[in-house]
Amino acid sequence: MNDMSTKKINTSVLPGFMELLPPQQMAFNRMKSVIIDTFEQFGFLPLDTPVIERAEVLLAKAGGETERQIYQFTKGDTSLALRFDLTVPLARYVSEHAREITFPFRRYHVGKVYRGESPQKGRFREFYQCDIDIIGREKLSLVNDAEIPSVIYKVFKRLDIGQFVIRISNRKILKGLLEGLNISTDKSVEVMRIIDKIDKVGKGSVEKMMVDLGIENDTITKIFHFLDISGNTDEIIRALEAMDIQNVQYRQGVDELSQVVTNVGKLGIPVSNYAIDLSIARGLDYYTGTVYETVLSEYPEIGSVCSGGRYDNLAEMYTEQKLPGVGISIGLTRLFYQLSEAGLIKTDSSTPTKVLVVPFVSDLSQPLSIATRLREAGIATEVYLEEDRMKNKLAYADKLGIPFVVIIGEDEIEKGEFSVKNMRNGKQTQVKADELLAYIESEGSK
Amino acid sequence: MNDMSTKKINTSVLPGFMELLPPQQMAFNRMKSVIIDTFEQFGFLPLDTPVIERAEVLLAKAGGETERQIYQFTKGDTSLALRFDLTVPLARYVSEHAREITFPFRRYHVGKVYRGESPQKGRFREFYQCDIDIIGREKLSLVNDAEIPSVIYKVFKRLDIGQFVIRISNRKILKGLLEGLNISTDKSVEVMRIIDKIDKVGKGSVEKMMVDLGIENDTITKIFHFLDISGNTDEIIRALEAMDIQNVQYRQGVDELSQVVTNVGKLGIPVSNYAIDLSIARGLDYYTGTVYETVLSEYPEIGSVCSGGRYDNLAEMYTEQKLPGVGISIGLTRLFYQLSEAGLIKTDSSTPTKVLVVPFVSDLSQPLSIATRLREAGIATEVYLEEDRMKNKLAYADKLGIPFVVIIGEDEIEKGEFSVKNMRNGKQTQVKADELLAYIESEGSK
Repeated sequence: MNDMSTKKINTSVLPGFMELLPPQQMAFNRMKSVIIDTFEQFGFLPLDTPVIERAEVLLAKAGGETERQIYQFTKGDTSLALRFDLTVPLARYVSEHAREITFPFRRYHVGKVYRGESPQKGRFREFYQCDIDIIGREKLSLVNDAEIPSVIYKVFKRLDIGQFVIRISNRKILKGLLEGLNISTDKSVEVMRIIDKIDKVGKGSVEKMMVDLGIENDTITKIFHFLDISGNTDEIIRALEAMDIQNVQYRQGVDELSQVVTNVGKLGIPVSNYAIDLSIARGLDYYTGTVYETVLSEYPEIGSVCSGGRYDNLAEMYTEQKLPGVGISIGLTRLFYQLSEAGLIKTDSSTPTKVLVVPFVSDLSQPLSIATRLREAGIATEVYLEEDRMKNKLAYADKLGIPFVVIIGEDEIEKGEFSVKNMRNGKQTQVKADELLAYIESEGSK
Repeated sequence: MNDMSTKKINTSVLPGFMELLPPQQMAFNRMKSVIIDTFEQFGFLPLDTPVIERAEVLLAKAGGETERQIYQFTKGDTSLALRFDLTVPLARYVSEHAREITFPFRRYHVGKVYRGESPQKGRFREFYQCDIDIIGREKLSLVNDAEIPSVIYKVFKRLDIGQFVIRISNRKILKGLLEGLNISTDKSVEVMRIIDKIDKVGKGSVEKMMVDLGIENDTITKIFHFLDISGNTDEIIRALEAMDIQNVQYRQGVDELSQVVTNVGKLGIPVSNYAIDLSIARGLDYYTGTVYETVLSEYPEIGSVCSGGRYDNLAEMYTEQKLPGVGISIGLTRLFYQLSEAGLIKTDSSTPTKVLVVPFVSDLSQPLSIATRLREAGIATEVYLEEDRMKNKLAYADKLGIPFVVIIGEDEIEKGEFSVKNMRNGKQTQVKADELLAYIESEGSK
């Protein structure tokens, strides 16, 4: 241990890592609890896999950008890596424990994942993902694709961060469309890339790029016809059905999407909270069927706060078993950051404590036993144990936003009455020892 | 992505890492929740710092064995490491945010830490620590040292894993004793090492080793006199006071210990749940005053399940400010493992789900809306969405330990009555639609 030089150690948090002060941490934890509680209400089982995985496990699924972002290292002669999402660990887990798991396997996982991205505003290298997935063995009913939005709906309703819309689409539609228009697989990727730019560069540029790619005019017209489809869910489904596309995948995609939105409606999700948005199928290329994105209507610039979809086979890298699934992920750290930036995070209290007991006696028996009694009644209570002036003791309660201070001096003990100060309105009241609990409970709920 | 070879990827969990099946995970999470809830009842604030720290931050405090166990790696040109405990991150955090923190700073932190130990039974490379600490600025009242055991008491009482004893001592006593006996600092370390072997090798061997070290007979007699001290807290304190040791540190240690156990008693902790144990001061050399260990009376072989103590200065490596503190840590992963081995972990249910709705209709509106209604009432509910035989649907509920199955077919919808099967006693009852909620609630609480 080096004494002189170590004073200079850099104690700031690493760039790209989030570290919160207690009031913000409490707000963050409240969001996390709402998410976990909702997941459990829908019968999802908790999972908590190691943050460190064998590098080969993670590299089997990663590729390109993701692979470069993985934190890799060696311990002994084992090549290790930090997980970059919760889906790959799920795939490994299900492959490894398939015989002990009951299918359909509904699991949630709330945990930290790691990506060594270039740090920039709102991008984190360590962040919480909150995932749910439903995994079937060999098959999984399409009704599950409708249940997932009902979980999203419940989560964001309870998070109470304003109006939101769950956008739903199906990847088979766009893929089937291009297939049905006889666009080769190679070109199809390029076409998707081009049409994804339409909002940025406009229709004219997109048309030119498609002509340059050698797409025929007739085909371009049909693509534009498809891109122009809009309306409510029924109108979009009818327009998709009316398109002159003879392709099995296309028809299947439209049929699946139609079933999913019908069932979403039956699940009691208000019409204003979900919509078909065919454009979201352009990205999310990990998925093979239904896809979801969720946007906060008042903060579209935040982008999707919850994305996911259906995949044909979760764990082909690790097992011969076919494991279709559907799931979503909430990037909580990023969401919290964005909501903070938008001023939407309430941090009115910076402690779980409801009562601060302030003793002015040398024998602490009474103050400590009062604190114990309040805690037994479920009221989070602290005793101010430092010797200090009254002013400083009240300042402590004030800074932390503790709502009640109970002052206990010799006089109070003799009279069997305590001074209770309501820190929110400054009111000070004499309360009998045996009425203290009832008083706090009734005042606290006001 | 390599298709053929990847089937052979090793999906087993890495040695030294814990990965649980859902029923065990639920039991683990229940323990974690009890701990967190208790910490909050005592007004500790949540903290959640990054798992990755600058290597220099961790290496400043580590040394010897710990340093060798640290997971280190480089990303870009930054030397990084995974935290090996939650105390060093706390020291860094408090140094960095001292101006924004309200002191005394009471924080809890439940998180994973990493130590690349040689894997062996009951030792983990990734494990949860559950820490509380109270940090003062410049000073921190000794009463805090008595409050910490009251938190430990509450936690283990609520965890309900049998009788336990919080052992309390003070490091100043043994250090002061050896100083008072004029044993040099060098020899003093050696003497502590020797007397720590007394339970293993016996008094005779210890005496011989001390003679070999050049300790005088008179001094050895006094040391043995000290080691023989036993009894209840009062008897031990009286015996310590009666020792003929004229050393300031010794006297201070005895005085502090006396005050701490007196206050622990006032805090309402039953006499059977705490005791002075002078022997625990031999280890725990990170601490400078009060020290704690907690042992499960029926499982002494598990060793201490919760250790901690008082330290003079938390963050001398990072700041000029003096930050005395007191805290404890529960090694939850190891504790859970040991309790599992001892058969003490109850895994009666393997899902949060209370009701499985089983539809036998093609239109799922009714089953889905019933599930929504049950969830609104706080009853975790799943709908079995796969097409399957009745037998398999019930087997799913049975395997997961879901207590109630609500069967909804055409008949049931027509009659406005559902069949509710209580999976615990096999009883099947017809329940009216509008009485379903009340029925589940009343049957579920039996």
